[in-house]
Order: sequence, then C-alpha cells, then structure tokens
Amino acid sequence: MIFCKAGYSVCLYDNVAEQLPSAVSNIRTLLLDFESKGLLTGAMKTADEAMTLVSTSTSLAEAMQGAMFLQENAPESLDLKKKIFAQLNELASEDIILSSSSSCLYPSLFTKDLKHKAQCIVSHPVNPPYLVPLVEVVPSADTKQEVVDRTMALMKEIGQAPVLVRKEVNGFLLNRLQYAVLMEAWRLVEDGVCTPEDIDTTMTEGLGLRYSLIGPFQTIHLNAPKGVKDYCERYGKNIETVCNDQQNVRAFSGDTANQVHEAMCKQMPVESLEEARNHRDRRLAALAVHKKNEALKK
Amino acid sequence: MIFCKAGYSVCLYDNVAEQLPSAVSNIRTLLLDFESKGLLTGAMKTADEAMTLVSTSTSLAEAMQGAMFLQENAPESLDLKKKIFAQLNELASEDIILSSSSSCLYPSLFTKDLKHKAQCIVSHPVNPPYLVPLVEVVPSADTKQEVVDRTMALMKEIGQAPVLVRKEVNGFLLNRLQYAVLMEAWRLVEDGVCTPEDIDTTMTEGLGLRYSLIGPFQTIHLNAPKGVKDYCERYGKNIETVCNDQQNVRAFSGDTANQVHEAMCKQMPVESLEEARNHRDRRLAALAVHKKNEALKK
Repeated sequence: MIFCKAGYSVCLYDNVAEQLPSAVSNIRTLLLDFESKGLLTGAMKTADEAMTLVSTSTSLAEAMQGAMFLQENAPESLDLKKKIFAQLNELASEDIILSSSSSCLYPSLFTKDLKHKAQCIVSHPVNPPYLVPLVEVVPSADTKQEVVDRTMALMKEIGQAPVLVRKEVNGFLLNRLQYAVLMEAWRLVEDGVCTPEDIDTTMTEGLGLRYSLIGPFQTIHLNAPKGVKDYCERYGKNIETVCNDQQNVRAFSGDTANQVHEAMCKQMPVESLEEARNHRDRRLAALAVHKKNEALKK
Repeated sequence: MIFCKAGYSVCLYDNVAEQLPSAVSNIRTLLLDFESKGLLTGAMKTADEAMTLVSTSTSLAEAMQGAMFLQENAPESLDLKKKIFAQLNELASEDIILSSSSSCLYPSLFTKDLKHKAQCIVSHPVNPPYLVPLVEVVPSADTKQEVVDRTMALMKEIGQAPVLVRKEVNGFLLNRLQYAVLMEAWRLVEDGVCTPEDIDTTMTEGLGLRYSLIGPFQTIHLNAPKGVKDYCERYGKNIETVCNDQQNVRAFSGDTANQVHEAMCKQMPVESLEEARNHRDRRLAALAVHKKNEALKK
C-alpha cells in the first residue's frame, strides 16, 4: 500500500495463494480511506490510480522478475527467515535488494551464508506502517554500502522516516527502548508501587504526550536552562542512582503476568481486541492527520 | 491557573514579592489563551471570571489563612524543601493539606519529623501542567488516608489525571520510566549503534505516537492475538534477554554528553531554547485540543 501510493509497481506473493485477493482488497480499502482523508499526497493522487500498480503472483520467481526491491513480511521466526532467505537467494538478480521486515532478528543471523548476502538488509516497519512512519534500517557487516544508501533513500522517497541502525543489536532501537520501559513498568507493578492502569495513565496523560512530539534527547535539552549538558550536571547523578536500582530483570510470567493481563482484560476483553485495535488505528490515523496539519503551520 | 479555572480561590505567595505581579500576569495570559481555544470548560467560563478568584500575599501566614490545600512549588532541593516544610508546619491548621510539587524527592524525606506530617503529601504535576494532565500523588507512611483521598479527589475535580504512588520510590513513576528510556538511549549512542537524532526519530515517528494514545501495557495487550499473557509467552524470553543486556549503567557525562549536547544544539541552539519551549507548548496545546475532540467522538 505504501509502495504503490508512492508510484511503485508492486507484485504481491504469498505461499498461501488464497491470501492474495484479501491482501489486494485490504490495500484498496486503505487507499480509499487515505483518499477520503486527503492523505494521498504522494505520486498517486487517487486510490484507483494507485491500484493500477498492484499485481499478484502465485510464483515467487515471477513476482521477483525485474524487481529492484523485495520486502519479506513473514512471522518473526529465525528458522522461517532462514528458509525464506535461502529461497530468495536462489532467485535473486545481481541488483535486487532483499529486505526483511524482521523486528528483532538482525540480518546476519539469516543471511551470512548466502551468495547474495551483500544485497540483504532489514527494513523494520512499525505497525501499522501506513500510520507510523518509522522504519529501522539494519544492514549486516556484509551488506554493501550502496544497498544501505538505496534502502534509506527509498524509504524516505515513499514517505517513511528511516533510521539507520549501525550495529546489529537484538531489538534494534524501538524495541530496545520499549523493553526498557516495559521492564521498569513490570518492576513497579510487581513491587506494589502502582497498578498496571497507573502505568498506562502515566504514559498517555504524561510522558507519552511529550514523546509524540519530541524525543528523549530533545526533551532533556528543553528541560534545563542551558540544554543537555546543564541537564546532565543537574540531574545526571540522580538518574544514575535510579538506574542502578533498575538492574533487576524480572520474569514476564507468573503472578505479575496474571495481574497485568486481568487489569487489561477489564478494559479490553480478549474477544474485543480486534475492535480495540481498530479503535487504536482510527486514533493513530487522526493523530497522523493532526501532526501533518500542525507541521504545515511551522 | 488550574485551581482557579476550576472555581477555587487561590492566594499566591512568593518569598520574592516582585515575582507576584508577573505570576498573576502569566495566569491571565494563559487563561485568555485557554478561553480563545474553547478550553475553559470547568466551573469558570471566562478568563475574567477566573481571575476574580486570584489574589496574592506577601505574608505566608496570610496566604494560608483558611486554606484547605497548599501547593508548594519550590526548586527540587532537599534542604530547601525541609526548610519550607518546617515553616509550613508552624503555620498549618489541623485540616490544611500541605502538598509538594517535588518530582523525585518523596515526602518522608522532608516531613517525617513534623507535627503535621499526617497532612503532608506530594502532588507532582508535569510541565506544563495546564497541558499535561498527569499528577503523581505520593503519600508517606505517615500521611492520613483521608488526606490521600481528598488530594486524589481534588486533582480529578480540577481536571487533572492523578495516579497514586503506593510506595515512596525515587523518581516516582514518570521519571523512573523516563530514566529507563534515557539510559538505554544513552547506551545506544555511546556504543555507536545510532545517533542522538535517530533516538528522537524512533520516538516521535514510532513509539511515541502509540504512547500518546495507549500506555505500555495497553500496547502489549493489543500486540498479541490473545492479549498480555499471549504476548508474554511469545516475546517474554527475548525481552528478558534484551534487558539482561541493559544492566550496564552509564555516566551522564564525558564524550557522550558532548555528543548528545552538540547534536541537540544543532537543532535547537541554547540561545533559542526559550523559543523552542514555546513551540513545544504550542504543539502540546494543539495536541490537547486534538485529544479532547477525538475522545468526544468515542
């Protein structure tokens, strides 16, 4: 959906051929929604126009024929990624980029033995990618610089916000930050300091309001009269003290898992999670429109 | 400003008397801005009406005369808080609540030897409090339950979003979560995984978009087909692995402090920080209006 609205021809492949018609239908629905909200501001101005660029194939070889860029979107399993990338390696031309949507597994884990490893990279989108622009671009030590540059340029061109992860680390940037938050949230609940709901309120009514506009470093730069260094001098020692206290890694299971699960199920029962996800996406879409309009006022 | 727009009479006191006229003038400016944006939805419907509730005094005893609630807003210094609370203790009636705006220092540190310690509590607002509704309410072991209950109720009544911190911990909830994020961001930059700008992009174009709408636990509840417990089973082990890797506490000084400071100064030079803070607040105000309108659509 993101590639075709930017003007690129896209051929979809799935090993379960029955998935293809519903994928195409989802893309059309999303494009029409974007069109109605005035969000189709790329090369394609209407959903119909963008849809002319979408095709499907039940043959992987055919789908890859003449392609400049391939985005693999299989589940996060190392065995599966290895199997798929071995297959892609067989079919790859000399200039196609083989890009994985992996969210934690870094590329060398499933590409290091391949002939075309220099053409392999991770471009991790964030769900839902048509509303959340971040893409984490993660090359391995074997990835050619030209492949890194072309991937970064392509992601910018299609309207995403790529960041370059310069070393292969488990969880990249987004999940490492998210896991640091989650682990501290877990400790606070496990130690009886607050309820799970209080953690969510602290984020949505406090820290998260800032974080949708300014990042952690921009935040501290603004939070001391003379910027980051001033902030470090004023608060650095206390931050180190608090963080020394955050070393205890907890298990994501047992009583705390039950407590958090039950608290969340009271708000959002498991059987209504799909509805809750749709609600989240509607709010994210409205937030995307809001941020776009505000940025134009600058 | 927040108390008077909700209909409470407020008497301001400052030990530097010259601060009082500018404080009053700031409140008027903010109220007029809120009025023009349609955000005066509490008891007072106009800035003029709210301003009739604001008075000042150059005598602390006079300012506290007949008051039900006192909010102390001095800088974050333990010596200072001790000095001020000793003074407040001398002047306190039997039913006034003595509330501190402390952001990290917990109440027993500066109230445990006071006669009126059962009436002392922390109510930590987040800057700017008229745009960011979170308030962290932190009683000490000596605080009366009735004082906790009245403080929570008052914060809700004036339109803030209070959370109750049930144990005295350094940094409460917001700063503990923020410090966990900051420390991991610091490690990633120090270890050459990414630039400071990439950390901010990861937040503002990725994780932070979600966090302005749904908290960390709501996020994971939605991110596995069957909610939190399903998420823990799928991803718990890997989160624990990543967090085991996040134990190394770094110093907030040296080369990394220089690198982060310079990167931020390129975006926002120290001499323009006040302007950048105003811009942040304008965007926060617009976000507050946006979230309010969207919540009404539910």
